[in-house]
Amino acid sequence: MEKYKTSEDGLYFLSTPSGVVYQTYCDMTTAGGGWTLVASVHENNMHGKCTTGDRWSSQQGGSANVPGGDGSWSNTVTFGSAEAATSDDYKNAGYYDLEAKNVAVWHVPNDNRVESWKQTSFLRYHTETNFLNQSGGNLYHLFKLFPVTYNVGSCPANTGPSVPIVYDVGNAESTHNLYGPNVRANSEPGFITFRAINSEKAAMAICSGVKPTDCNTEHSCIGGSGHFPEDSPRQCGDFTGLDWNGYGTNIHWSASKQITEAAMLIFYR
Amino acid sequence: MEKYKTSEDGLYFLSTPSGVVYQTYCDMTTAGGGWTLVASVHENNMHGKCTTGDRWSSQQGGSANVPGGDGSWSNTVTFGSAEAATSDDYKNAGYYDLEAKNVAVWHVPNDNRVESWKQTSFLRYHTETNFLNQSGGNLYHLFKLFPVTYNVGSCPANTGPSVPIVYDVGNAESTHNLYGPNVRANSEPGFITFRAINSEKAAMAICSGVKPTDCNTEHSCIGGSGHFPEDSPRQCGDFTGLDWNGYGTNIHWSASKQITEAAMLIFYR
Amino acid sequence: MEKYKTSEDGLYFLSTPSGVVYQTYCDMTTAGGGWTLVASVHENNMHGKCTTGDRWSSQQGGSANVPGGDGSWSNTVTFGSAEAATSDDYKNAGYYDLEAKNVAVWHVPNDNRVESWKQTSFLRYHTETNFLNQSGGNLYHLFKLFPVTYNVGSCPANTGPSVPIVYDVGNAESTHNLYGPNVRANSEPGFITFRAINSEKAAMAICSGVKPTDCNTEHSCIGGSGHFPEDSPRQCGDFTGLDWNGYGTNIHWSASKQITEAAMLIFYR
Repeated sequence: MEKYKTSEDGLYFLSTPSGVVYQTYCDMTTAGGGWTLVASVHENNMHGKCTTGDRWSSQQGGSANVPGGDGSWSNTVTFGSAEAATSDDYKNAGYYDLEAKNVAVWHVPNDNRVESWKQTSFLRYHTETNFLNQSGGNLYHLFKLFPVTYNVGSCPANTGPSVPIVYDVGNAESTHNLYGPNVRANSEPGFITFRAINSEKAAMAICSGVKPTDCNTEHSCIGGSGHFPEDSPRQCGDFTGLDWNGYGTNIHWSASKQITEAAMLIFYR
Repeated sequence: MEKYKTSEDGLYFLSTPSGVVYQTYCDMTTAGGGWTLVASVHENNMHGKCTTGDRWSSQQGGSANVPGGDGSWSNTVTFGSAEAATSDDYKNAGYYDLEAKNVAVWHVPNDNRVESWKQTSFLRYHTETNFLNQSGGNLYHLFKLFPVTYNVGSCPANTGPSVPIVYDVGNAESTHNLYGPNVRANSEPGFITFRAINSEKAAMAICSGVKPTDCNTEHSCIGGSGHFPEDSPRQCGDFTGLDWNGYGTNIHWSASKQITEAAMLIFYR
Repeated sequence: MEKYKTSEDGLYFLSTPSGVVYQTYCDMTTAGGGWTLVASVHENNMHGKCTTGDRWSSQQGGSANVPGGDGSWSNTVTFGSAEAATSDDYKNAGYYDLEAKNVAVWHVPNDNRVESWKQTSFLRYHTETNFLNQSGGNLYHLFKLFPVTYNVGSCPANTGPSVPIVYDVGNAESTHNLYGPNVRANSEPGFITFRAINSEKAAMAICSGVKPTDCNTEHSCIGGSGHFPEDSPRQCGDFTGLDWNGYGTNIHWSASKQITEAAMLIFYR
């Protein structure tokens, strides 16, 4: 990003070492700038359980036969576009080819235009520990080390790294309130956690803003393997079991409508 | 388009104000030229009812839980390519970012190469009223005003605008004959109508060539919401209920094979 | 390709006569070089029978109502990317627009990065007969002459061309061993065969490395029409019935895990 010598947020063309050219959004201002959008996780249909559009889990219905689901967290398949990152799943070549040290995450309400992402986001944070240095330099490599695959390990022994976060918008309390009261009672805010595993050995990719302290991780961690045994396929999907006690109710294990109807944007720096 | 100072139909690279570059087909000759292809609605499987490939309605099976379906009419998600616009659904960044005054529509038989679209099209028309001036300058904005969503209004009170058309190929009678006799008895040719609603409160995006005069709009209007209550999901799909009395039979409410097996290409100027 | 005056394998930007720009992998060294990757056939879920991701057969579930399936073998729809060609189906504009004489095929284990395709491929071969001269210059045109459509002909009368191959990696025996013993007993290695038809009149696109001598072609020939009548939809999918006697068992009619978990890359020259 440095070569652009610019401080404006917006769309830029980038290219990978092997010559793949792609266009994405860069945040040139937060905490020094230089953040490249590499992916978004968007729930197109909370009622669809591992159906079309669940590219960060599985589009195959939820089955032990496809333990890794669509495999998007650790392959080179790309999809979507930066401009539609709050209306559809998005993944560009930077996701697997950038060399980065930290991540930032924005939760932006669905169907927002690029110009209003920053203002409308209700949770934004980033890491400062350079944790990606230990994981191959990006999430593609991290998830090679910690596969998002059913039955690859158990809880809590095989949970991946929990990294402390610095808030840019929101705070520990507002983050916690996005999830149901049972999640609040069984997690610690102020972290981003990778590759959670639940009681039934389903794997999830990212627990945004929290470190789970129990094994019911499917109510706060999103993106997942192709099979979730508990009442299958009810927890299978890009937003897993965030609707377990009703869509957007924010009671028991259910998340709020605010986070359910927002895309999670992932940046590298 | 003007900057190209050219009068040849064909593929051009364009870019949006925010810098998105896309390639599409331009018609540089009809009625003064300057028409940019922004979308095509293609029925990949008339027997599939809101299944994979129904990007202008829903790929989620037809359900009241997804009233807006895939939301393509009023979001920034793009898909397909200009060269495949008669073999697959197509939508580019111009659809939501061009500032236009009028639309043109071509009905081109499926699987035609770009070079033969103009000759093989059996219905082509355009508007001349500058109606998009009142609707935000393109269909993305028009469908923000008139959402293609189940249960958002009722018929006939909430039907969107019907705009008179000028024929480039075909005429009022040939247009009418593309639809079933019951549609002919309940519509007026010579118009393009936006956001029709049917008796059961399902919404449709475009009635090509006609203004419905009843509320059985699912037999002439295409692209739609995610739920069609009547005998659900039989009317759900990119080409709605054009096969209601048999595929391509052109009896009762069924459309002709000619229009069922053709893509609807949408241009802006 | 010649204009690049280069002998390095890797990604290149190419453009079609009509101006479509695309990026793909070129093999500049095998047998004189100049091979352009135009497609890959990847099985995302051997247990999914004509479900999402079966772009070279059908994503519509397997039904006589969609005899041509998704139609990818003879239309201009493109999908995927070169870098993900071993993790997803891939098809670029070169597939339908290059003028070529021969094909090369590589079988590369799934989820391999571009740099390691050549080393990890376990079967690589090419034709030298210039057979595409008689078929319109590429597979798009060949499959217009020999449609991959259910019920378009019968076996053995309407089988398409079998072209002798020259091995770059592997040989007749290693090729044969990739398929089940019943396939070995009913096919001749050393050929690539196009548009096979089986006993039930389902059509397949490519029998890689073999010429079938019976009509149970669904156990060695891949990519296919939208309907496979025998025990429907069990043979429907990008890799047809390669799992007929168990996934990867390599007994009776089942193929080996090696070929089942590898993508078939198709090159032109």
